[in-house]
Amino acid sequence: MVYVGIDLGGTCINVGVTNADGAILHQEETPTLVDRPYGEIIRDMGNCTLRVLRKAGFREEDVSSIGIGIPGVADQRTGTVIFCPNMRWKDVPLRDELQKYINRPVYIDNDATVAGFAESVCGVSAGCHSSVFLTLGTGVGGGIVIEGRPWNGFHGIGGEVGHIPMDIDGEPCTCGNSGCLERYCSATAVIRMGRQVMANHPNSMICRLCGGDENKLNAKMVFDAAQEGDGAAMKVFLQYVDYLCKAIYTIIAFLDPEMIVLGGGLSKAGSFLLDAIREQIPRYLLFKNLPYSRVEIARLGAEAGIIGAAMLGKKPV
Amino acid sequence: MVYVGIDLGGTCINVGVTNADGAILHQEETPTLVDRPYGEIIRDMGNCTLRVLRKAGFREEDVSSIGIGIPGVADQRTGTVIFCPNMRWKDVPLRDELQKYINRPVYIDNDATVAGFAESVCGVSAGCHSSVFLTLGTGVGGGIVIEGRPWNGFHGIGGEVGHIPMDIDGEPCTCGNSGCLERYCSATAVIRMGRQVMANHPNSMICRLCGGDENKLNAKMVFDAAQEGDGAAMKVFLQYVDYLCKAIYTIIAFLDPEMIVLGGGLSKAGSFLLDAIREQIPRYLLFKNLPYSRVEIARLGAEAGIIGAAMLGKKPV
Repeated sequence: MVYVGIDLGGTCINVGVTNADGAILHQEETPTLVDRPYGEIIRDMGNCTLRVLRKAGFREEDVSSIGIGIPGVADQRTGTVIFCPNMRWKDVPLRDELQKYINRPVYIDNDATVAGFAESVCGVSAGCHSSVFLTLGTGVGGGIVIEGRPWNGFHGIGGEVGHIPMDIDGEPCTCGNSGCLERYCSATAVIRMGRQVMANHPNSMICRLCGGDENKLNAKMVFDAAQEGDGAAMKVFLQYVDYLCKAIYTIIAFLDPEMIVLGGGLSKAGSFLLDAIREQIPRYLLFKNLPYSRVEIARLGAEAGIIGAAMLGKKPV
Repeated sequence: MVYVGIDLGGTCINVGVTNADGAILHQEETPTLVDRPYGEIIRDMGNCTLRVLRKAGFREEDVSSIGIGIPGVADQRTGTVIFCPNMRWKDVPLRDELQKYINRPVYIDNDATVAGFAESVCGVSAGCHSSVFLTLGTGVGGGIVIEGRPWNGFHGIGGEVGHIPMDIDGEPCTCGNSGCLERYCSATAVIRMGRQVMANHPNSMICRLCGGDENKLNAKMVFDAAQEGDGAAMKVFLQYVDYLCKAIYTIIAFLDPEMIVLGGGLSKAGSFLLDAIREQIPRYLLFKNLPYSRVEIARLGAEAGIIGAAMLGKKPV
């Protein structure tokens, strides 16, 4: 038997077929074209799935289950997408619609949860008792895995680490609250802080890398300049590391997982970021002499979305 | 078979024997006298246990297991108390010492976790898929229960909700960090805020209740005055409710348990506090139209410590 994983994004739909270990046998993508009616988007998901299976040499009846990672919240009992803000989906019967094209069991989960689950199946947190995955991108997403299974909470809305309150009366957030964790730990936060130092440090490498145009500044430029030893950039980087350590410490104090996995665009900074975090975390720990969660960089990259989705339907051994 | 539960506190050791449903059949207490060597304290725990069993009409061999709730962190594998700040215990072989007096299986867990577990066995969260218990006292403790079992994390240091960072550069905390959740959500926080308004509101009911002496002010006085309609007290109460709602929302966003249970001294305010919280929570929710964790007041009171400890050794059905 094989497993189908679908990574539904605002730009692209990535579809892959995997074996029971989560290894991708074949994958293809198709544009989401998000402004279309959901029926058309789901039709393309179905057709792309059938195409991937055909090219990989499998038939519909070889498929054990289909999993879908969505940038939103699903009701896993009914297979309905409750809310998917980037796609403007609300109460979309994704499972029923997809089963018109391929009639196999369908599992749906949040994309950050799915990516964290993939790491726990065949990535850096494989075999862990428990893990929390953080996607450090435009926002901050979270994926909790407990004893080998994704954890969404009782109402399916858990793992929203990016919207944990981190500062009373802090930076306003897109969600309507203020001081949310993702206002301090996302790439957006790095850019905001980078722009702030640009004004006072016109000769900094940050300014050179973006050609003096703050609208062209991205988080990679700030991290790259910091890694080159630029003082202004290093100031932003260290402030970011401090915020991220507070976020990581929140996870340790609350859930104490075996591992905390950093994914998303900012995690591409690799050991430059990881070493700085590992050095700073101990200062926040409540029990200074006790072991605590290992922090690691995600290993699977962009394919985590397909792998984790595919594995949603795999029964625990 | 019966179960023994021991609630080890800085002032008193409470020992009870329960049936398999957690109902207390007999209980007694003995003073901790915390400055003694740990061997003497554990000897008194053992003797008190034997006395409770004798008076309840049971023999040592009727005891299925003994559970102990401690104000600290234990290594559940070895039965050692790693760290218990209020008792100045460090690496105390509690299980081995206690088994000198009564040789039955011993389980040890944190007192807030134990109290939350008790509520999930036969209190307000009985039958819940998942719950988080908050003790709102001098500090704030947390107890996580997932699918009927206490959750301590991988290293046994989870559930420390009181030390989640809630404010960047906020109030200094006893733990060495600043801005910890318990600086805003504990009785200590209510007293701090109460003292602040006393200065500007010398005629407020808060001042009358403590005889104008801020050293005599306690959190109950502030809540009582607020409930009587005193303006200065109401200001403190509403600020407290707002902080507590942020804490509750943190739990919802992260773990999304079925229920959040409020215990500890401040929870005695009952529906006055609960109604105010329930009214305020929705403004923080990320998904305004989706169901979220029920918030309830703990039901078992002081006996939760014995009941939860006793049930630690009961195998899940």
